[in-house]
Amino acid sequence: MKAPKISEAVVRRLPVYLRYLIHLQQMQVKTVSSQQMGKTLDINPAQIRKDLSSFGDFGKKGIGYDVDYLIEKIRQILKLDQEIHVALVGAGHLGHAISNYNAYLRDNMRIVAIFDNDPAKQGKTIAGLVIQPLEELKDTVKQRQIRLAIITVPAAAAQAVADQLIEAGIEGILNFAPVNIRTDADVKIYHADVTSSLQSLAYYLNRTKLNSDGSRNK
Amino acid sequence: MKAPKISEAVVRRLPVYLRYLIHLQQMQVKTVSSQQMGKTLDINPAQIRKDLSSFGDFGKKGIGYDVDYLIEKIRQILKLDQEIHVALVGAGHLGHAISNYNAYLRDNMRIVAIFDNDPAKQGKTIAGLVIQPLEELKDTVKQRQIRLAIITVPAAAAQAVADQLIEAGIEGILNFAPVNIRTDADVKIYHADVTSSLQSLAYYLNRTKLNSDGSRNK
Repeated sequence: MKAPKISEAVVRRLPVYLRYLIHLQQMQVKTVSSQQMGKTLDINPAQIRKDLSSFGDFGKKGIGYDVDYLIEKIRQILKLDQEIHVALVGAGHLGHAISNYNAYLRDNMRIVAIFDNDPAKQGKTIAGLVIQPLEELKDTVKQRQIRLAIITVPAAAAQAVADQLIEAGIEGILNFAPVNIRTDADVKIYHADVTSSLQSLAYYLNRTKLNSDGSRNK
Repeated sequence: MKAPKISEAVVRRLPVYLRYLIHLQQMQVKTVSSQQMGKTLDINPAQIRKDLSSFGDFGKKGIGYDVDYLIEKIRQILKLDQEIHVALVGAGHLGHAISNYNAYLRDNMRIVAIFDNDPAKQGKTIAGLVIQPLEELKDTVKQRQIRLAIITVPAAAAQAVADQLIEAGIEGILNFAPVNIRTDADVKIYHADVTSSLQSLAYYLNRTKLNSDGSRNK
């Protein structure tokens, strides 16, 4: 099956839609309109209709979308209808915090291995997983069929870790280290570090908000 | 000054360009071509040219972009040429980890206050900041002119915290809680939680990679 080509912006919104729809499903809601979705998610309903139509037209005018069907469809598009194993590299504060998110990962996606190159951490357990040395990365990725990885090591170590992950066959990386990761390989890298995210958010600030005396206009 | 309208995808890429350009600047590099940028950042050079032209044409054919000027321009577009104070709510593992990122925040952007509703945490210090009770949020946001906030509280508490932040006058929220945050206010919300990010990444997985016996094709 050839997957439809969707823009990165849409790919970013689909998990937001999915979470909302699963919430509706849990409340036994059967159909939802783009108006309702838009109001709850603070996204323009026309944008939602456009996003969803980009992978097939399955909303019914006046009735809206079938919640169960839309969930199934989004999971299919995002390829969440298969088991996806994730590795985490870097067992510091951030790695700790993120491994605790495991409970929230749905749809057969979960962190199955944690690595750190600090011998003092190796052998200890986080979120039920034993911290392994990086030397075991390649074998573990193969054995556990790990396809995605999360990098939570310091900036200086991130590129070397990414190189090892890609060499081991990882297909996508969520990078929390505050550094750009380079690769020639066909691997998708998301920069999820706080610095970049805050810098993007700053774009939406209102420049005229400060008065000449430095006080704010509200 | 009316800021140019840029798509969210471009706004997401600008910090990646900025970090790379600052790195070049530190190495005394004066000009850079979209080809060089594209190769290093693994982004199509045509995409880079398009992104940068969307806020004015300032690359020179055959010479490339002036590094210093491009940095200045991107900082201006992202509104990083002003002081931006950030609040963090939730002093757990994740809050701890993120407050340590403060050292990486550049361009006058920094976390200036940390809040947690757990009395056992209040008064303690993280990254040089005293953890305050949420009751002090509104006054502190005003006094410290805080404009952005990071939410690192558990899912169940996130919406209430967001409501308080928006009520206090926050203009943008980086939400790490694995839950959708709703608002009618003109506040930009980025969902940065690991679940959504991994779900988006899954889209780029190769569906045909698993063999029928479950083994991988490499």
